[in-house]
Amino acid sequence: MAQDFERDVPPSGRFDGRTHLLPARVYYEVTDFTGFVYHAHYLRDFERGRSDFLRAAGVDHTALAGVDTALTLTDIAIKYRKAARIDDALIVHTTFGGLAGARILISQRITRGPEVLVEGQVTVCCISMTGQAKRPPALLVDKLKPYLDT
Amino acid sequence: MAQDFERDVPPSGRFDGRTHLLPARVYYEVTDFTGFVYHAHYLRDFERGRSDFLRAAGVDHTALAGVDTALTLTDIAIKYRKAARIDDALIVHTTFGGLAGARILISQRITRGPEVLVEGQVTVCCISMTGQAKRPPALLVDKLKPYLDT
Amino acid sequence: MAQDFERDVPPSGRFDGRTHLLPARVYYEVTDFTGFVYHAHYLRDFERGRSDFLRAAGVDHTALAGVDTALTLTDIAIKYRKAARIDDALIVHTTFGGLAGARILISQRITRGPEVLVEGQVTVCCISMTGQAKRPPALLVDKLKPYLDT
Amino acid sequence: MAQDFERDVPPSGRFDGRTHLLPARVYYEVTDFTGFVYHAHYLRDFERGRSDFLRAAGVDHTALAGVDTALTLTDIAIKYRKAARIDDALIVHTTFGGLAGARILISQRITRGPEVLVEGQVTVCCISMTGQAKRPPALLVDKLKPYLDT
Repeated sequence: MAQDFERDVPPSGRFDGRTHLLPARVYYEVTDFTGFVYHAHYLRDFERGRSDFLRAAGVDHTALAGVDTALTLTDIAIKYRKAARIDDALIVHTTFGGLAGARILISQRITRGPEVLVEGQVTVCCISMTGQAKRPPALLVDKLKPYLDT
Repeated sequence: MAQDFERDVPPSGRFDGRTHLLPARVYYEVTDFTGFVYHAHYLRDFERGRSDFLRAAGVDHTALAGVDTALTLTDIAIKYRKAARIDDALIVHTTFGGLAGARILISQRITRGPEVLVEGQVTVCCISMTGQAKRPPALLVDKLKPYLDT
Repeated sequence: MAQDFERDVPPSGRFDGRTHLLPARVYYEVTDFTGFVYHAHYLRDFERGRSDFLRAAGVDHTALAGVDTALTLTDIAIKYRKAARIDDALIVHTTFGGLAGARILISQRITRGPEVLVEGQVTVCCISMTGQAKRPPALLVDKLKPYLDT
Repeated sequence: MAQDFERDVPPSGRFDGRTHLLPARVYYEVTDFTGFVYHAHYLRDFERGRSDFLRAAGVDHTALAGVDTALTLTDIAIKYRKAARIDDALIVHTTFGGLAGARILISQRITRGPEVLVEGQVTVCCISMTGQAKRPPALLVDKLKPYLDT
C-alpha cells in the first residue's frame, strides 16, 4: 500500500527556543477577490500555531478533552502590516507568555521570509467541556512549563 | 417560476440611528467540536455587518471596485464575553466612528437577545485594487456622511 | 434599546410549494483570488438551505439533538454551471425527495436571477450523537411529511 | 533570526508512483458541534491536495496565472464513508486521470491509517482569468505528463 503511516504524518512544526514555528502555505480557499488573503484566515493560522505548539509540547486537544478541558479565546488584538498572496510560504510564530489564573497569554506573528505580515496578542482561557472557566489542569501545566516566560 | 426576484432578495439589515443591525443565524459550519461557535467566525459576521452597512448606505464592493477601491483591515481588537451555539439568532451591530486619512474607525458588537457576546474595534483602510493606501473616494464619503460620528 | 427581538430575527426563507427558497448574499469571505466564489462555499450555502428548510418546517438542529439525532452527509454530487461574484444576490432552492431507511434524498440548486449556477444531489443520513445510523425520529418525520415527494 | 527559510518551508507532500500524498491534520476550525469534521471541509483538503500535486509536479497557481490560466471545478461527486475527529492525522491522495479538451479528471481519497474516510471524483476545467474555458497551456501539460494515466 502506497501510504506510509510513519512517513506521512502531518508536520507539527518545531521549537526554536521557546518559540514554536509552523510553516503554512496560502491555498486558493483563503484568498479573496482582492487577490490577498482574507483577514479572518490569519486567526485560523494562529489557532493552528497554538494547537501545534501544544502538540509539539506533548499535549493535544484530545488529551485535554480527556481531562475535561478545552481552550477558548477571551481577547485577541491583531495588527495587519502586509498582505499575503496565493502560493506564499508563511511561518506562524507562537510564544506562550505565562499563566494567570485560568488564562494563558500568547504572542503570535506570521512572517513571509524576512517580512512580518501579521502580529497578534491572544488570551485564551481554560474551560470545562460545559463552558465553565477552570484552572489549567496539571497535564497542561507540566507540558507547558519548559516553554513559559518565567 | 417559483422564485420571485423582488421578494427573495437577501436582506441587508437596517439602520437604527447611526447603528446598522444585521440578523445572523448560527449554522452547523461555524460551530466547532466544543459545541460553541469557532472564534474566528465572528470576524466573518463582523465583515458581513460592515459590508451590509455600506450596502444599506448605498455603496457595495462592486461599486467601490468601479472606482479602484477596496477596504482592508489594519487593526482589530476583540473581546469574547459569551459563546453562541447552533441555531442561535444573533444581531451584528455596526457603527462607523469617523474618517482619519485613509482609515475608517468602526465599532461592532454581536448580541443574542439582551446579551452582548462579542465586542470589536476595527480599523479599515481604503486601498487601490493593487494594494496602495488611498483616501476614501467621494462615492464612499458621500454615502457614509449621514452615519458618521462628527 | 435599539434592537427589536421580534423584528431582527434572521430570516429562514420560505416555501414555494414543496421547495424551500433561501436568499443568500455573496460576501468577501467566500470569493477567491480568481474573483469568483470558491467552489466549496456552495456546500455551506446548501447546508444553510437544508437547515432553514427544516427550521421553516418546524424542526431545528437543537430540537433534533434533543431526540439524540444529527444529520450527516453520505453522498453529494455537484455540477458547477456558472460562477458567482462579490455582492451577487443568490437563491438556494431545496427540495426533499423522500425517506429511505435512515437516509433522506435532497435536490438543491443555486440561482442568480434566471440563471442556474450550481446543482446538487445530496443524501443525508440520520445519526445518533455518537455517530450510529438510525431511522428518522417521529419528530422529524411528522414535520417533513407535508414537504416530501410521495 | 530564529526562522530558517530553507528549513521551514510548508511541505507539499510527495508522489508515490502517479499518486500524490499530502498529510493533513484535523484542527479545531474544521470540526462542528457533532464532534466530527464538517463535510464541506474535505473539499478544501481535496483542493490542497490538487494544488500540492501541481506544486510537487513543478507548477503552482502563480505560474498558471502567469499564462492566464486558473483551474475551476465543473463536477464533483463525493462519498462520505467514515468521519474524522479533532487531532486526527489524515492523508489526501490525489491521482490525475487524463486530459479531455479543457478538462482534467481527478480521483481523490482521504484516509486515516488503513481506513478510507472520503472518496471523490473531481473534474476541473482550465479557464482564463476572465473565466473562459481554454485548453491546458503547454506549461501545465508538460509538467503533468509524467503523472497522467495514458
